[in-house]
Amino acid sequence: MKIIDGGVTAAQGFQAAGVYAGIKKKRKDMALVYSVIPAKGAGTFTTNVVKAAPVKWDMKVTKDSAYVQAVVLNSGVANACTGAEGDLNNELMAKAVADSMSIPAAAVYTASTGVIGKQLPIDVIQEGVKLLAAELQEGIEAGAKAAQAIMTTDTYPKECAVSFMVDGKEVKLGGMAKGSGMIHPNMATMLGVVTTDLNISKELLQEALSADVKVSFNMISVDRDTSTNDSLLLLANGYAGNKEITEKNEDYDNFCKALNYVTTELAKKMAADGEGATKLFEVQVVGAGTQEEATIISKSIITSNLVKTAVFGNDANWGRILCAMGYSGVDFDPEQVDLFIESVDGTLKLVENGMATDYSEEFATKILSGKVVKAIADLKLGSATATAWGCDFSYDYVKINADYRS
Amino acid sequence: MKIIDGGVTAAQGFQAAGVYAGIKKKRKDMALVYSVIPAKGAGTFTTNVVKAAPVKWDMKVTKDSAYVQAVVLNSGVANACTGAEGDLNNELMAKAVADSMSIPAAAVYTASTGVIGKQLPIDVIQEGVKLLAAELQEGIEAGAKAAQAIMTTDTYPKECAVSFMVDGKEVKLGGMAKGSGMIHPNMATMLGVVTTDLNISKELLQEALSADVKVSFNMISVDRDTSTNDSLLLLANGYAGNKEITEKNEDYDNFCKALNYVTTELAKKMAADGEGATKLFEVQVVGAGTQEEATIISKSIITSNLVKTAVFGNDANWGRILCAMGYSGVDFDPEQVDLFIESVDGTLKLVENGMATDYSEEFATKILSGKVVKAIADLKLGSATATAWGCDFSYDYVKINADYRS
Repeated sequence: MKIIDGGVTAAQGFQAAGVYAGIKKKRKDMALVYSVIPAKGAGTFTTNVVKAAPVKWDMKVTKDSAYVQAVVLNSGVANACTGAEGDLNNELMAKAVADSMSIPAAAVYTASTGVIGKQLPIDVIQEGVKLLAAELQEGIEAGAKAAQAIMTTDTYPKECAVSFMVDGKEVKLGGMAKGSGMIHPNMATMLGVVTTDLNISKELLQEALSADVKVSFNMISVDRDTSTNDSLLLLANGYAGNKEITEKNEDYDNFCKALNYVTTELAKKMAADGEGATKLFEVQVVGAGTQEEATIISKSIITSNLVKTAVFGNDANWGRILCAMGYSGVDFDPEQVDLFIESVDGTLKLVENGMATDYSEEFATKILSGKVVKAIADLKLGSATATAWGCDFSYDYVKINADYRS
Repeated sequence: MKIIDGGVTAAQGFQAAGVYAGIKKKRKDMALVYSVIPAKGAGTFTTNVVKAAPVKWDMKVTKDSAYVQAVVLNSGVANACTGAEGDLNNELMAKAVADSMSIPAAAVYTASTGVIGKQLPIDVIQEGVKLLAAELQEGIEAGAKAAQAIMTTDTYPKECAVSFMVDGKEVKLGGMAKGSGMIHPNMATMLGVVTTDLNISKELLQEALSADVKVSFNMISVDRDTSTNDSLLLLANGYAGNKEITEKNEDYDNFCKALNYVTTELAKKMAADGEGATKLFEVQVVGAGTQEEATIISKSIITSNLVKTAVFGNDANWGRILCAMGYSGVDFDPEQVDLFIESVDGTLKLVENGMATDYSEEFATKILSGKVVKAIADLKLGSATATAWGCDFSYDYVKINADYRS
């Protein structure tokens, strides 16, 4: 596997565009990803009972359509809690793409992000689709424009791509995502699109994606709020020319590794760019009895407001980490836990067998001042591990969210 | 039932003291509550796997001791994650009280609050107990001093008391509590002491307390962090002279009502004085299928960072409330939900059948600007209801917690 430049247009046969349609003030607000040949589609979606119109649409497309060919996305308005009018507007958005590209509406995925409860400005959207169709291009720059157009409170676009070999053919896989707030994915995340020119069966494509999100997007959290719009879409158009993957062989494993690299990188970028974040906070739980328990504990730490504010303050207040482990619901022996913090400046053991070591507060503060800070908790119960990603909690999170709509 | 002045010394036969011992800088840091005759004790404690030394001690006292007579509390150091040395220090604290008051150590409840992972300064504590014993007094002022001494980041002491009639006798019941941060009680809360001169069996005392916390202290949240030290202690010394309550009769019901009034008031004061809070935020879920579902949904709303920041910003961003309801884990029909906000300025319906009404943003902002703001969600599924209390989320929460230890 090789890391390459680009995002959703890295794989062969994928084009993209990002334009300013007029939903938001002055910033790009619509994106289109298009495969020049029909592609197999897979998706994972929010588990929130309140599902946005595009989520309901995409779940049906994933289930019923043998092929998909386009993903249209808008930022500014989430099209959630918008009733029958919202469903109709979403369908009109898909139809506008279908008309422009001469494909069936059932081959169009839709995705929206922004304020909940507002109707899509459908006239603006329909005009936007025409602009997108005209701008559609291959190449890295086109993908970058699409990644910009789906940002809300994100401070930078999120892209990643790799290449790998299957059946003697070079396969590419790349994606884009947006995050920032209302980020606590559960089965998917707030708008991610991954494309690949791999030839693979639809069943295995979905299986790979569903397995992957459990250790990538589902392991990040910015604010513990699972969005109404979370959608991760994966398109595979077979352009690479490999023999179709129809069983879980070595090629499938290579694909899964490539997919996981891209989704994990996108997920980490999302965590690092969480609303108000000043650093990426990674939590690794090792020595757990089961992976499920390691997962639960790592997510409990990563989502604790008290841990996150301490990380923001560069304060080695490790008691809050043990506290968050303790209320996670997992049974373990606190008096057996070791705890470390780590950054480019080094590694420091803060806790041994549940009690403070004689560590240097000065060195702890130096480690915590890094742009990427890691905490490692060893339960000494077994060999299961899990890693979760989040961010610190700063004044700016409050600022951004106290007046997001205004 | 009559609301009366005072707190832990409102009931007959209870004395209290609050002193500066030297654990914290310049602020009162130790309290003692004492019953002049043996009292029955009941307690509910944190469900956190990481339990502080005093929690482990009190659980044993509650289980094994037929009578208790004193509660000693300190602020500044939590005595959690302190290993065998912490357990020994806690026992020495209890023994110091036992020696001073000539009672068995097994009749002494202990409680600590403050930084996790530090050892108690046991010399300071032992001297503090002597000061407390010398200061012990009846009356409202003594209770107020004790309430002050258990504060950490609280901005005001929390007390409440009532009187009610049982068997022709006037019974009094009052309590104190402290909260502020790491507040998401699960079976109890971060240090609450309630005293009554009621005569009641130990079994019924515990049963009443365990039932009560489910709808009082367990329904509040400041930051979703369940502390390692949560303890709610209830002492009943029988001084009122009523015939012992040994069955669930009308007298028991009256006691439960009085208990619930005091615990709910203390819980609401704790929520309103959450770290950085500018207002009390109350969430009522009505029309739910079961009380458990109503409880889960109300707590999901009250703990959402996005809802809390919107309430801080006086922003009627109701989509975040529906979103938090949707990821609570409870199944309901979003397109049937009505949502109201309420304060002294009036009531406003924001959402009808899952969609925005044509409400006035100006009036919504006025309502949300109140010191006590209520949201009411009607699921229209059944007749079950639940109420939860929390607070808004301000810059000051981050400020307080980014440098709490320094």
